[in-house]
Amino acid sequence: MFKPIMAEFLSTALMIVFGVGVHCDTVLNGTKYHGSGHLFAITTWAFGISVCLFVFGGGVCMNPAMALAQCMLGLVPWSMFVPYAIAEMLGGLAGAVVAWLIYADAFEVSAGKVDGVAVRNIFSTNPLINDLPRSFFIEAIDTFVFVSGILSIAHFGGDNLLLVAVCVGILVWAVGMGMGGMTGFAMNQARDLGPRMAYQLLPIKGKVDNNWRYGLLVPGIAPFVGAACAALFVHGFLGIF
Amino acid sequence: MFKPIMAEFLSTALMIVFGVGVHCDTVLNGTKYHGSGHLFAITTWAFGISVCLFVFGGGVCMNPAMALAQCMLGLVPWSMFVPYAIAEMLGGLAGAVVAWLIYADAFEVSAGKVDGVAVRNIFSTNPLINDLPRSFFIEAIDTFVFVSGILSIAHFGGDNLLLVAVCVGILVWAVGMGMGGMTGFAMNQARDLGPRMAYQLLPIKGKVDNNWRYGLLVPGIAPFVGAACAALFVHGFLGIF
Amino acid sequence: MFKPIMAEFLSTALMIVFGVGVHCDTVLNGTKYHGSGHLFAITTWAFGISVCLFVFGGGVCMNPAMALAQCMLGLVPWSMFVPYAIAEMLGGLAGAVVAWLIYADAFEVSAGKVDGVAVRNIFSTNPLINDLPRSFFIEAIDTFVFVSGILSIAHFGGDNLLLVAVCVGILVWAVGMGMGGMTGFAMNQARDLGPRMAYQLLPIKGKVDNNWRYGLLVPGIAPFVGAACAALFVHGFLGIF
Amino acid sequence: MFKPIMAEFLSTALMIVFGVGVHCDTVLNGTKYHGSGHLFAITTWAFGISVCLFVFGGGVCMNPAMALAQCMLGLVPWSMFVPYAIAEMLGGLAGAVVAWLIYADAFEVSAGKVDGVAVRNIFSTNPLINDLPRSFFIEAIDTFVFVSGILSIAHFGGDNLLLVAVCVGILVWAVGMGMGGMTGFAMNQARDLGPRMAYQLLPIKGKVDNNWRYGLLVPGIAPFVGAACAALFVHGFLGIF
Repeated sequence: MFKPIMAEFLSTALMIVFGVGVHCDTVLNGTKYHGSGHLFAITTWAFGISVCLFVFGGGVCMNPAMALAQCMLGLVPWSMFVPYAIAEMLGGLAGAVVAWLIYADAFEVSAGKVDGVAVRNIFSTNPLINDLPRSFFIEAIDTFVFVSGILSIAHFGGDNLLLVAVCVGILVWAVGMGMGGMTGFAMNQARDLGPRMAYQLLPIKGKVDNNWRYGLLVPGIAPFVGAACAALFVHGFLGIF
Repeated sequence: MFKPIMAEFLSTALMIVFGVGVHCDTVLNGTKYHGSGHLFAITTWAFGISVCLFVFGGGVCMNPAMALAQCMLGLVPWSMFVPYAIAEMLGGLAGAVVAWLIYADAFEVSAGKVDGVAVRNIFSTNPLINDLPRSFFIEAIDTFVFVSGILSIAHFGGDNLLLVAVCVGILVWAVGMGMGGMTGFAMNQARDLGPRMAYQLLPIKGKVDNNWRYGLLVPGIAPFVGAACAALFVHGFLGIF
Repeated sequence: MFKPIMAEFLSTALMIVFGVGVHCDTVLNGTKYHGSGHLFAITTWAFGISVCLFVFGGGVCMNPAMALAQCMLGLVPWSMFVPYAIAEMLGGLAGAVVAWLIYADAFEVSAGKVDGVAVRNIFSTNPLINDLPRSFFIEAIDTFVFVSGILSIAHFGGDNLLLVAVCVGILVWAVGMGMGGMTGFAMNQARDLGPRMAYQLLPIKGKVDNNWRYGLLVPGIAPFVGAACAALFVHGFLGIF
Repeated sequence: MFKPIMAEFLSTALMIVFGVGVHCDTVLNGTKYHGSGHLFAITTWAFGISVCLFVFGGGVCMNPAMALAQCMLGLVPWSMFVPYAIAEMLGGLAGAVVAWLIYADAFEVSAGKVDGVAVRNIFSTNPLINDLPRSFFIEAIDTFVFVSGILSIAHFGGDNLLLVAVCVGILVWAVGMGMGGMTGFAMNQARDLGPRMAYQLLPIKGKVDNNWRYGLLVPGIAPFVGAACAALFVHGFLGIF
């Protein structure tokens, strides 16, 4: 039981090192890739997730919403839901701390020069336009497509873990670019709330309001709705799992 | 019979959520990825189609022109042609409505600030240079390559659905960038006319002429010509199907 | 015998439609993707070649230099070398004419507005810095890596045509970006001289000198040197074929 | 014994031709792809490594740190460690010389026009912010993820060399973009010190200080730490090799 929980923690942390890391890279001063844009960042999120699957195998969820869907489908025992979710949240927090350790010098030179909201958004997803119900709807839809996609890929991919991982990366690429522009495609409590907590705790200069209300209501809840719908859809309509 | 028709509807809708969605993302104000450019957009169209195949399997056409080619080759019964085409057209419409629901706040803040033609072109394909015969020729050629490519990929890929889906994405990537600059590579009645109808119906501010003449004559007809030639070519020259 | 020669003609033509097409797209006025840059263009060249292999299978050379290497290795009979090379050259010419037909309206609106040298370079490869011996060396090296790579990929890929085709695209991507900046990575007589002839023949306004001396001496000869070395290398050092 | 050592030399050289080459391409004047940005460059590094694996097979290390990890795991005999490391260092030097030969005309026209530090950084990795302990930590972490990833990919990929090579490219893509912005992701003595020596020796105009202290202390040592941890991790936690 220790190993899978540890794998959830480590894989989620690694995902966040890639994802928060690439936002540090493109947003902060003092990095080589400053200003490299959204294709650069979303490609890293997408294929950083592939790397997590390469390393930790196809069993990891890295996401409480995905864990919920897999519990509903009987792929993960319900008794593991809370341990997995806690490990993932802590992994999200730890990964953001590691990314901050990597980019700490860039945070230093960016203090007072890079907009405080942009620095906060390195960690957590926050929409440009404040509209809670719409954001909730978007995160639910995005997660529905995301979780349905992963489950289908796993179904069709069988034993070919590498191909499964590459296809999951491609899925994140497309969802991020096509459906992510309003909310930043959290689709995962651990991806949003873990790094949001890190922003709260880390000694970053010029902090702005951390928008917990948005974080808890939208990326905190909507992915469960989307993932539950996805579990029903893949089982009921696609007839897999 | 219900399931495959429903799959056509849903897969086409999902494709359009990706494709119209990414145009919202890059064209409208108020999105995070505003101005991310054509590589960003075409990558999303391309691998969004891969995702549709990951989820709905290799049997879906998502395109009346492709349905025609598959009927000609005996892969889909002729009795399904009209039901498929209708489901796909409705899917294209529904997908554009979902994309609009996701990006509705961005449409709002863009009203009067983003050029009306650019907003219309989020939905449908319209050339920069008005030349109906040339556009017809281009859409026929593009569809010929597109449909021939998919059929060959399906032939060589066999059971490996994930690899087939990735290769179809790569095909769309190359066709879009290399052959798409004049007409926007519709190659599909459902992709163009479904979202064009959505633009007609949705409460978008500052609408411009919807260019139905172009829509019906070029993306409405030319893809059938290209797809029929593709069916003859893969059967007669390549000797597959 | 007719079929493989026709396949050489058609596949080379298709490759050039992608490649010359994407240069039209990024260079000419009046296209949607004007100014999309080199990553956009090289990605299209790379994965356009994957598409040619998807459609025409792994047997096509699309390149007299590759045909030479395959003749040296006994993969193609020497009696086919001249017919293949002629079919490929004509394919290169035909493909450039098709690309011109697709983008003819953009050529029209670009006349006198886009630099004549840039328009010529849509078709053929010409270095920014005139240095024949250096360019010869570069094209030989590039072709050596390119042909060695394809032969190795074919060896390791076996029957998995789709994966082979994707990997060849990845190879072209890397060679184009990493080794292509001085000469434009022709690596193929049919890719350079076919479209160069098309530029000579087509009614394009404001033509500039067509640089045949460069075309014939560098992309006309150096790829044979690189490909012959590649044949010796894969046979003698890698021990394949 | 000669063949594998020669393969280390040649594969490392080829990797550096891609990597140093693409930096020439984007940094120097007189190249076609000048200013193409970091996505362009990192994509080339990533998939250039895939090409090296396509050509030389899955056995090559191309990296003394990777050789160390494989010796620790019993995949490479310890007696080969020093010969491999020397061959790799010389390969890194030779590859940088070949890249310089390819781009020599561009070096010429860039003299006095492109910043001397930018020219030096074509060859070797040097951080924008001088902080030795932080850089050491970053290079150790990056190498840990890099080597763990490759070993896992090799484990899951088995005989499918092409898929393994593509996945290694994807790994480098993600690590480079997400974790590379502070130090330039050397992760390899041969990649940094070989080209650094080439910069020392080649007749480049306007040379700046070559920063050997950084080169020897950070990319010279930290990758061994990261790779050793990776060997322990994949054996002890993942239970592979």
